Amino acid sequence: MRVGIDIGGMSVKIGLVDKQGIAAKSVIKTASASQTPYELIEQMADAVSLLLRENSVEPESCEGIGIACPGTVDAQSGIVAYSNNLGWENVAILEAMRERMASSTPMALANDADAAALGEVLCGAAKGKDSAVLLTLGTGVGGGVIMNRKIFSGFLRGGCELGHMAIERNGRRCTCGRRGCLEMYASATALMEHARAVAAEHPQSLLCTLSGGRIPDIDGKVIFEARKRNDALAGLVVDEYLENLSIGIVNIVNIFRPEIVILGGGVSAQKEYLTRELQRRVEGKCFGGTHGQISPIVTSELGNDAGIIGAAYLM
Amino acid sequence: MRVGIDIGGMSVKIGLVDKQGIAAKSVIKTASASQTPYELIEQMADAVSLLLRENSVEPESCEGIGIACPGTVDAQSGIVAYSNNLGWENVAILEAMRERMASSTPMALANDADAAALGEVLCGAAKGKDSAVLLTLGTGVGGGVIMNRKIFSGFLRGGCELGHMAIERNGRRCTCGRRGCLEMYASATALMEHARAVAAEHPQSLLCTLSGGRIPDIDGKVIFEARKRNDALAGLVVDEYLENLSIGIVNIVNIFRPEIVILGGGVSAQKEYLTRELQRRVEGKCFGGTHGQISPIVTSELGNDAGIIGAAYLM
Repeated sequence: MRVGIDIGGMSVKIGLVDKQGIAAKSVIKTASASQTPYELIEQMADAVSLLLRENSVEPESCEGIGIACPGTVDAQSGIVAYSNNLGWENVAILEAMRERMASSTPMALANDADAAALGEVLCGAAKGKDSAVLLTLGTGVGGGVIMNRKIFSGFLRGGCELGHMAIERNGRRCTCGRRGCLEMYASATALMEHARAVAAEHPQSLLCTLSGGRIPDIDGKVIFEARKRNDALAGLVVDEYLENLSIGIVNIVNIFRPEIVILGGGVSAQKEYLTRELQRRVEGKCFGGTHGQISPIVTSELGNDAGIIGAAYLM
Repeated sequence: MRVGIDIGGMSVKIGLVDKQGIAAKSVIKTASASQTPYELIEQMADAVSLLLRENSVEPESCEGIGIACPGTVDAQSGIVAYSNNLGWENVAILEAMRERMASSTPMALANDADAAALGEVLCGAAKGKDSAVLLTLGTGVGGGVIMNRKIFSGFLRGGCELGHMAIERNGRRCTCGRRGCLEMYASATALMEHARAVAAEHPQSLLCTLSGGRIPDIDGKVIFEARKRNDALAGLVVDEYLENLSIGIVNIVNIFRPEIVILGGGVSAQKEYLTRELQRRVEGKCFGGTHGQISPIVTSELGNDAGIIGAAYLM
């Protein structure tokens, strides 16, 4: 039995994981901004101890505790160097967990998208593959790269930030400071912002009707639903989104040629509707055409559990 | 003693390589378009046999023969899948070499930029490093990635085409078929085309004077020389070039975080003048700022020999 912890902006998910998957789960709401990182870590440690106790797992028989965290992590030293989502800087998370739990259980740390990619390779959409690239299409665009069934996170600290690959030289200003990052074009946020902007100019459009006239309620589901009903405006928004996302995927294929590309995050709920369109666009643009091999594009199978499962197998 | 072969558009360079470097060399001019790939391969095999004989190396004591070739290669099967530079398609180069030489010497095949990157790691600009990314700035932009002192060329055929990473969504049309590839902005060709275009509009400029008024003679050397003499037009051309190249390098750092980035090809003759400017631009744009680690940028030390040396150590 192992423990996987997935730290998010809204909650921390903790799972008891075995070869069959997640046996038990608990969730901590990440509270007010006044909470220090170390207060949250203490809560996490206590929640892990409780989860083990409730499920009659002796701490000694727990094979490991893995933590997935957004941002730039230093896996070797167990330190979260920087997470803008959490507002953390140089947090010695593994040391703090060990102290609070007074435990010698092996612990490990990884970036959340990296852990999710590992989860998908171990028992999700990429099961049986040696290599995979995961793109999470949510608030931002996260990237996880698996090589030879292990996380690849670059050689120096801060690698595999696939969402921060520029696809537009003088493009939109990104939160990371540079311009034209994939994240500004292929995140769920980018999709929704574009749709809301065009919907505001066309209050009679299906985008507005389907969201009950409430522009801020236009989300990915509404946008794809309107497109499936052949709404021209939604067609325009989705086409531009798919084109932008496909540019990022072609870059990734031209660089890594992974055995599979997995899409996660909110937008991946569109499943085959999304991947079919993307596969067609990507195939026409990869280097070498049919002389190269094109990675198949699929959606996540584990969804929000991918990070927990991947984290549990970091050790 | 080993043999390294570097196939180029103009010539094939063959080197006898030992731990001290290249002990002896021979060159074959790649002749007319009427020559078939297999005719050239026979010439190469004969030239290798001659080089060994001339240097009193018994074929049995040759540890291996490695071939570096531009384009998409399948290292495992020893086949050049596609090389637009050479006009080759599905050429079984290793099999043909073995037949012609009637030799059981181990042979191996790699993409030319990959081999050059390996050469630089073994005994050039990245000596002692485990990881490196090489960008060759010549007719196009080639890429070679070294991980754990081995070539990384992706998991499916056609990977590590770093020059075919799009940095402009609807950018310049590339020879590979897509738009906005780094190659269209950061190759020596792109630099020269831009300079020649602006020089044609300003016949009194230093760019024209330094090239004796012959626009087609404006090359990288002329362009950088004019900039060093504070010519405004050359300043504009070089600044745009450095900006474009830095976008590609930041993408590479955000993805791989290699221990070192090496620049090869014609433009790399500018050495520190080039890397100093690039390092400054790249440092300001990498993800995570000082929370990440920025790869140092250097120029190739082995130049045209890198491919020969890397090829010799493929086995």
